[in-house]
Order: sequence, then C-alpha cells, then structure tokens
Amino acid sequence: MDVYFTEEGSVEAVNARTASEANPRLAEVMACLVKHLHAFAKETQLTQEEWEVGIDFLTRTGKMCSGERQEFILLSDTLGFSMLVDAINNRRPEGATENTVFGPFHVPNAPIREMGATISLDGKGETCLFEGRVIDLEGNPIAGARIDVWSDNADGYYDVQQPDIQPRWNNRGIFVTGSDGRYSFVGIKPVSYPIPDDGPVGKMLAQLGRHPFRPAHMHYLVTAPGFQKVVTHTFVGDDSYLSSDTVFGVKSSLIAPFERLTNGYTAWRSPFDFVLVPIVIEKASPDFKP
Amino acid sequence: MDVYFTEEGSVEAVNARTASEANPRLAEVMACLVKHLHAFAKETQLTQEEWEVGIDFLTRTGKMCSGERQEFILLSDTLGFSMLVDAINNRRPEGATENTVFGPFHVPNAPIREMGATISLDGKGETCLFEGRVIDLEGNPIAGARIDVWSDNADGYYDVQQPDIQPRWNNRGIFVTGSDGRYSFVGIKPVSYPIPDDGPVGKMLAQLGRHPFRPAHMHYLVTAPGFQKVVTHTFVGDDSYLSSDTVFGVKSSLIAPFERLTNGYTAWRSPFDFVLVPIVIEKASPDFKP
Ligand SMILES: [Fe+2]
Ligand SMILES: [Fe+2]
Repeated sequence: MDVYFTEEGSVEAVNARTASEANPRLAEVMACLVKHLHAFAKETQLTQEEWEVGIDFLTRTGKMCSGERQEFILLSDTLGFSMLVDAINNRRPEGATENTVFGPFHVPNAPIREMGATISLDGKGETCLFEGRVIDLEGNPIAGARIDVWSDNADGYYDVQQPDIQPRWNNRGIFVTGSDGRYSFVGIKPVSYPIPDDGPVGKMLAQLGRHPFRPAHMHYLVTAPGFQKVVTHTFVGDDSYLSSDTVFGVKSSLIAPFERLTNGYTAWRSPFDFVLVPIVIEKASPDFKP
Repeated sequence: MDVYFTEEGSVEAVNARTASEANPRLAEVMACLVKHLHAFAKETQLTQEEWEVGIDFLTRTGKMCSGERQEFILLSDTLGFSMLVDAINNRRPEGATENTVFGPFHVPNAPIREMGATISLDGKGETCLFEGRVIDLEGNPIAGARIDVWSDNADGYYDVQQPDIQPRWNNRGIFVTGSDGRYSFVGIKPVSYPIPDDGPVGKMLAQLGRHPFRPAHMHYLVTAPGFQKVVTHTFVGDDSYLSSDTVFGVKSSLIAPFERLTNGYTAWRSPFDFVLVPIVIEKASPDFKP
C-alpha cells in the first residue's frame, strides 16, 4: 500500500493517524465517522461543487445557532438522527412506555401543581382533561412519580416563544403522584405547529419537498425513584401530520385517545398510563470471588 | 413495517419523506447521507451524551467561521474528506501530474512576472530556483500555460496571514510559458507550518494525538487552453512531516527534488515538470442520427 493518501485507502490513511494514547472510545467513534463519511463521498461520487454546497450549508447552520435557536439540533431532528440516538439508548421491554424526542422547549423547575389543576393560563384553546396512572410493568401504582408536562398553546407556540404575549408557565406544570399512582390535570387539546423553518434546515426541507410541521402532542418527562426516566409525548390521533412528523417523533404506542366530553361545551378527555421500567442494579455475580 | 419511525427502519422512514418532485441528485445525495449517518450511530451505539458533544462541536465549528477562517473546511481537510473529493473528481491517466488540496491561501489575480523573476519579496529564507516544463502526455511542450504559484515565507506564514508584516504578493506570482513550455522562477525553499489550530478542529486533533503541521510545499495552479486544470503542490522530500501531513495532501509523485547549489551561499534548485491531460470533447456518435 502507498504510504500516502489514496482514494482506495482513504479511510485507513486517516484513521492510522490517531495516536495510541487517544481516548479509546473517541478513537472508535471517529474511526467509524471517517469510514461512513468517506463511503458517502465514494457512493455518491460527490462533486467539488456539491462539497462546496455542503461546507456552505454547515457554515450557515452554525451561524444560525444562538441562545434561543439550535439549528444543528433541528438538522439532527429532521434527518431522524435524534430519534435514532434516542431509540438506541432507550430500548425497553414490551409494555413499557416508549421514549420520543425531548425537543427544545422544556423549561426546568416548572411550578408543582395540585392534582387536577389547570395548566392553561391564557384561556385559549379546547379544554382537555389529561388523566391516568404511573405504574410499573406489573401494573402496580408508583407513588412519588413526578410528571413534568408542557405543550404549545392554541396558536401553536410555547410560552418561551412568546414571552411578551403568554403568561409565564402557560401550559406547563409538574404533578406528583400519591400512593394510587394517579395523575390528572386540565390543559388544552394541543395543536400542530411548524418547527422554526426560516433557516438553512427549513430551506433543506423545502428543497426535499417536506413540510416543517409536527403533529399535535403533549410533552411528558416522567421520573420516579428506582425507575428509568421517560421522555415522551402523547399524540392526538386525528392530526393530519401524524404520519409525517417532520422530526419522526410519532410511535404507535404514544397515540392517545382524545374523547369528546358531552357536557355542553367543547371539551376533551385524554386518558394515558405511563409504564415505567425499574433501574436494574448490577449485582456482583455469585461466582465472583474478590 | 411500522408506518412510524423504528430503530430498524430508521433510514427508510426518513428517506421515504423526500417528495418525488425534489431534485433527483439532491434526493440521491441526501438519501446516501442519511444511510451513512444512521449506520454510524448504530455501529457506534452512540450515546445521548456523545450526541450532545457532537452538536456542541458542530456549533462551535460554525461559530469559528469568519471571512478569514473556514473551520468546516479545516474539518473536512483533517478528516481526509477534502482529499477524497479531490481524488474522486480528478482521476488522471498514468504519467499525468496529480492534483492535491487547493488550500485556503490562494489569492486570484497575482502579478504576472517575467520568466526567471523572484517571487520572494521579503528577503527571508533559503533561495530556490524552481524550473521545468509544462508538457502533454506525449512530452510535447505546451505554450501559453499559466503557472500560478504561492508559498509561505521563511516563518511559515502566507502574505495574507501577515498583511502588516509581509509585502503584498510576497511569494506569489503567475508565469506564462512560451513555445518551449519552459518555466522558471526564484522563490524560497518552503517550510512546514501548522494549520490554524486555536479552534475546535485544533482541539479535535489534540485529542486524537495528532499534530497540526503540513510538510513544506510550493502551491501550483496550472492551466492551459484545451487541458485539464491542475491544482497541486510540490513537496520537499526531507520534511519530517512528509508522512503525516495533517490534511493528507502528500502523493509520492509530488515529492520534488531539492538539490543544493554549490555556489558559495545556501541555495537550492527544484526541477519539476507538469504533465497535463487534454480535455476530451464528447463527439456525437457516428451512429447518431438526428
Ligand atoms: Fe413540542
Ligand atoms: Fe499551503
């Protein structure tokens, strides 16, 4: 083999440079990245002009990032990469509640509210009662589970996107289960909304003929001592974007019932149980002799 | 198959979204990119924390880019991606002068100088006579070839990196061949230099245990009517970084002789011929009947 770079030996030429003192995991991840980046260029026979377009796209994506905007996360989301990493890291047994993308709109330390309280503070939207239980894989209630919820308002914006218009903590709250594992709160039936599409990622979606919408969903972060954290949404089943979520967040098991309540005004009820998986503590093997 | 995103079907889920109206080449390139990005995450079983490190790295790389600094090109260069794209797009017959990376330091419209003239304007460095011929694959001289040359100075900086210190157009010039195809100019024996390493790419190299140096080289952009453009360097053969160029630009055929001249002071002679490939004009097939 040529001691220098060749088209055929390009991957080996690059990865051979990593020093033996480098962190082994970093070396492994970078070697795999180089392998797949080079395979991409070879399979597509990428032209010089296409390379320039790519460099320019990445540069503009970086320039778009600010405190309030993370365009590279949008890129990862819209290429299904965020959902893939989430899936790889959150495989769960049958029956357990599945994860989905966290999204950029969570705010830590929301107010802890009384069970049954309202999170919709702007009086807009169709009222919806969210209720259910936090249980383990055997169906036993989990006490002391924290259910952190957040959604957009009836106009499709999170409170943090409209700090001058929406009340602070609008459509957000934390609820803590008692011994019955039950939760309930009143919010609104969420509505679909577009991800920010005025940057390079929005242009990419347009060029691919893709829309920027997410189907209507309620966000949940459910934690309980001794159980794996669940980062998920519930989805409204009749949403027209359900099968084309621009960030690929939908899973069949996360489509929740939204039942119309017949009590004289437009209101809904959405029941959903969260099934948590215990954290398994690795025990020393019985054969292990120190 | 699940109609929604799954770990197993992640690539298909994403690529199925591209609309049939999308530009076919864009669709092809993006589908291949998604395939390899997802394969990378699956093979490495990329963790959520590693994903966050990656997003942060890309964001910092974007923020580092400015009019004078292109950190994404440095990233492409140091991962061998630039050289690979160059190789894919510039395959040439045996005996033709090979391409290498263009680099960020070319300045268009350098002064056209008389054959034999000096390009070193700051009086620093070891004088070197560069000379040779521009010829075709049969060895015939090419008249009217433009040889655009540029190198760093004896301190390892290009003039554009030190606009307040170096004379304008220091170590740059364009030479045009006559009917004998010969060229000659006086410059300096170039010296090795580090690529800018005070940004995210420099940190990446450090973490991989890689140095940021390029072996000493003279840049050439050779053009002639009817022939393929050659973007290349010649390398100084005794450079200690020759086998570890941080951007993988070295090819055996581009290592030029640097012969010491025994004329009382330190001076060198570096002969090198450029062999150009004709542009083949596609002719209508004789069978073609309009
Ligand atoms: Fe959301
Ligand atoms: Fe250079």
